[in-house]
Amino acid sequence: MADSEQAERVGRRARGGGGAARRAERTAVRVEFARYITRNIPDMEILNEEALQIIEHNAETVLEEIGVNFVENPAALDLWREAGADIEGERVRIPRGLARKLCATAPSQFTQAARNPERNVEIGGRNLVLAPVYGPPFVRDNHGGRRYATITDFRNFVKLGQMSKWLHHSGGTVCEPTDVAVNKRHLDMLHAHMTLSDKPYMGSVTEPSRAADSVEMSKILFGSDFVDQNTVMTSLININSPLTFDATMMGALEVYARANQACIISPFIVGGAMAPVSVAGTLTQVLAEVLAGVAYSQLIRPGAPVIFGAFVTSIDMNSGAPTFGTPEASLITLGAGQLARRLGLPYRSAGGFTGSKLPDAQAAYESANTLNNGLYAGVNFMLHACGWLEGGLVSSYEKYVMDADQLGVLHRLAQGVDVTENGQAMDAIREVGPGGHYLGCAHTQANFKDAFWRTNLLDYRPFETWEEQGGLDTMALAEKRVAKMLGDYQPPALDPGIAEALTDYVARKKAAEPDAFM
Amino acid sequence: MADSEQAERVGRRARGGGGAARRAERTAVRVEFARYITRNIPDMEILNEEALQIIEHNAETVLEEIGVNFVENPAALDLWREAGADIEGERVRIPRGLARKLCATAPSQFTQAARNPERNVEIGGRNLVLAPVYGPPFVRDNHGGRRYATITDFRNFVKLGQMSKWLHHSGGTVCEPTDVAVNKRHLDMLHAHMTLSDKPYMGSVTEPSRAADSVEMSKILFGSDFVDQNTVMTSLININSPLTFDATMMGALEVYARANQACIISPFIVGGAMAPVSVAGTLTQVLAEVLAGVAYSQLIRPGAPVIFGAFVTSIDMNSGAPTFGTPEASLITLGAGQLARRLGLPYRSAGGFTGSKLPDAQAAYESANTLNNGLYAGVNFMLHACGWLEGGLVSSYEKYVMDADQLGVLHRLAQGVDVTENGQAMDAIREVGPGGHYLGCAHTQANFKDAFWRTNLLDYRPFETWEEQGGLDTMALAEKRVAKMLGDYQPPALDPGIAEALTDYVARKKAAEPDAFM
Repeated sequence: MADSEQAERVGRRARGGGGAARRAERTAVRVEFARYITRNIPDMEILNEEALQIIEHNAETVLEEIGVNFVENPAALDLWREAGADIEGERVRIPRGLARKLCATAPSQFTQAARNPERNVEIGGRNLVLAPVYGPPFVRDNHGGRRYATITDFRNFVKLGQMSKWLHHSGGTVCEPTDVAVNKRHLDMLHAHMTLSDKPYMGSVTEPSRAADSVEMSKILFGSDFVDQNTVMTSLININSPLTFDATMMGALEVYARANQACIISPFIVGGAMAPVSVAGTLTQVLAEVLAGVAYSQLIRPGAPVIFGAFVTSIDMNSGAPTFGTPEASLITLGAGQLARRLGLPYRSAGGFTGSKLPDAQAAYESANTLNNGLYAGVNFMLHACGWLEGGLVSSYEKYVMDADQLGVLHRLAQGVDVTENGQAMDAIREVGPGGHYLGCAHTQANFKDAFWRTNLLDYRPFETWEEQGGLDTMALAEKRVAKMLGDYQPPALDPGIAEALTDYVARKKAAEPDAFM
Repeated sequence: MADSEQAERVGRRARGGGGAARRAERTAVRVEFARYITRNIPDMEILNEEALQIIEHNAETVLEEIGVNFVENPAALDLWREAGADIEGERVRIPRGLARKLCATAPSQFTQAARNPERNVEIGGRNLVLAPVYGPPFVRDNHGGRRYATITDFRNFVKLGQMSKWLHHSGGTVCEPTDVAVNKRHLDMLHAHMTLSDKPYMGSVTEPSRAADSVEMSKILFGSDFVDQNTVMTSLININSPLTFDATMMGALEVYARANQACIISPFIVGGAMAPVSVAGTLTQVLAEVLAGVAYSQLIRPGAPVIFGAFVTSIDMNSGAPTFGTPEASLITLGAGQLARRLGLPYRSAGGFTGSKLPDAQAAYESANTLNNGLYAGVNFMLHACGWLEGGLVSSYEKYVMDADQLGVLHRLAQGVDVTENGQAMDAIREVGPGGHYLGCAHTQANFKDAFWRTNLLDYRPFETWEEQGGLDTMALAEKRVAKMLGDYQPPALDPGIAEALTDYVARKKAAEPDAFM
């Protein structure tokens, strides 16, 4: 465990002399962070070679015979025509093999830099980077219930992310700050990620101009040259499934690809609505869509970093409601991982998904199903790894810390089994012998501190103790942990000149146009 | 899905004429049951060949150099001596390779017959049989809280098992009926399984004489000849880890093996206490213990059906409490599966484990972690698949139906991906095209009924509807489902002569000795 973790001590600022400094030292808050996961275990390969070839063949058939639509985007049609595609109106039909060939220039792994280089992440290969929930218009906490999200909530979630040991990435729209104008909220969101966290973050995709703001603000934070030469953002470009690429998302993709910034190119699938009800059919459509989207990114700029995305949920055929943590979605997540690896692309899928309205047992079953299968699917970038509630409508404070705690389980699982001499523990077995007890033996003494993953949340106390102390359920324990983490939070140091320049940029851009709430 | 499921209609008994019969038909309860799982997906192989060989080599070293104790069992020592082991006091040292050679006569797969042949289960191979929680002295329900279990609770849990679609096995001590004398409760427990359920069941192991009663009662239920020629019980023989085989458990094993009845031979490991704190060290000890136990079963009767068991939990090194759903236990479960397959033995492990005191989010995360890893570990017999709470001290009514619902997820995952022409769904993709909608297309219409696993418990309604209807969490939903299932329960038909003979046997045995509560 020691290899993949580092700890730092964030001292509360000592305001007085030696006595105050000593008091400060005693109350110092230990903020731990874990390096991104590097898997030492195999992937779960649920599709055999024949199934993979069928799906790959069918995806090419979809691109060649049916094609995809690039909507309100004549320049994209020109690029595709030039590359050899057949254009009819907004329909782009891509000859068999062309999209896959174009995808070949995309890197199989890339570094996303953070402003604190210790937080840099490697996306691709055997690695798994964990990022929080993205997009909910509502928040929920145990005390205040469900309500529209504000910029204060947004900042709280960024702070929780900074304080969460097992989270490698600050994410993007951790909730929608609905009290800020739609045309300006990206500025406040980026400002929060850049100043309240030193983990990597995502850029805005809701308008090409907002993507451009994201690049500009990143240049202030990192320096212009650095941003030109490094990937400092990974942003989420959804495909309008089935088979449609809209102008807004493609506009943002174009901005990012030209700036050599990374994009997740991600079909957004509610199975049975935006894709067939069958797993193989959905995988076929996902692959066709990603092939077309990634190929397009490489037409914009060969070598631009991209991620093979797959956001997949099923539908409840009785009510039409989306469902999460279901086996069909897990099978798609596992299968799409194989398709991504065969394409040589980093893979984004899974997360702590649930359809539940509360962070209750339903939420936990569904999230654990998705988290476990995400690990075994070989996911490289897991958005929504913590905090997701109610089908993505709600960012939940309590669920955030519950999921974030479980992410530690994934870290340890991914390490696999240590078969060094110490791991084999033959001396311990010899020392203890039949009928003995391992608690006191030398091997246990030497290894117990790092032997087992330890929760920061869950309750292992005996029933009687637990009951005497209030008999709290996980929601109540999580509520306490949220309060503690926000109370302990301290912003990571940032050059005052950079902080001022970021604040100025936001103020200037906000003043330049009237508020819009559409 | 249709292949692995069968449904039957259990009509409430019509007590009157045509009108009553029609009313009965309208209110008939549909009791569904699913066949045991046959995996169409690969296993998760976390140990590579080198790691496997190290562990297998070390396990033989343990048997040869350290040995195991067969306590208060001179006949066992004689058998071992005759087989070529080195005996010193109660210590049995087994020459390298001998135990593995003796294990070779154990079948790799066997049928456990149920009194309803449609409920027969195949244990081993690619199959997974799911059985409920075993052993808790307490029960808990949402309304009544936590209390000592009674025979009424026991019967309720057997009824829930009979009514649970995804549960293949009625289990054994679904809770301890603490209101019945210790020396007589096995009779009431067997009677309940035999009369209230028609699924397969487990025998008593707490005394050799109680194992003998289990065989006798099974002969009444199935007929003597049938029991001589078929396996009708799978019973749980725990090894007293580390490396100790006590006389009670071995006595029960001897009774069952001689009667050709199946036993799970299962180390009971709290890692850090009964085994080393390391995964590889624990796997080594588990393998050594199972090799010795299975070899002994084959000394009793070559060919007797047995299962490679591994009950594994970690320990919280701060409090000494056992912990569940942790990554170290998952790694051991996955690794032990590989060791069992290399031995050619059916494998028992995993379950819906948790240390939580309530069926809350903690319980669900921990249980889902274990259930998912149990499936991927290639487990063939999963005891504790539903109802386990508080580290196994409590059988929870609500958790039983929560877990039992999630077992449906495992069924669907295990089916893997259908790549038939229908599964490929190319016609659907062609029909819908870019920007379309799959809800109404022909492929969706033809397939939607069986396309997705469906919960019988979880809530997918929109927030507003859910809130209007009381805003119930999973515990409250589960409480309602428990009441409905117990209300709908009907006993499966049983020959009145057999029922009477079973009741007589129990009465006669109970009258033959005074109650004992120790």
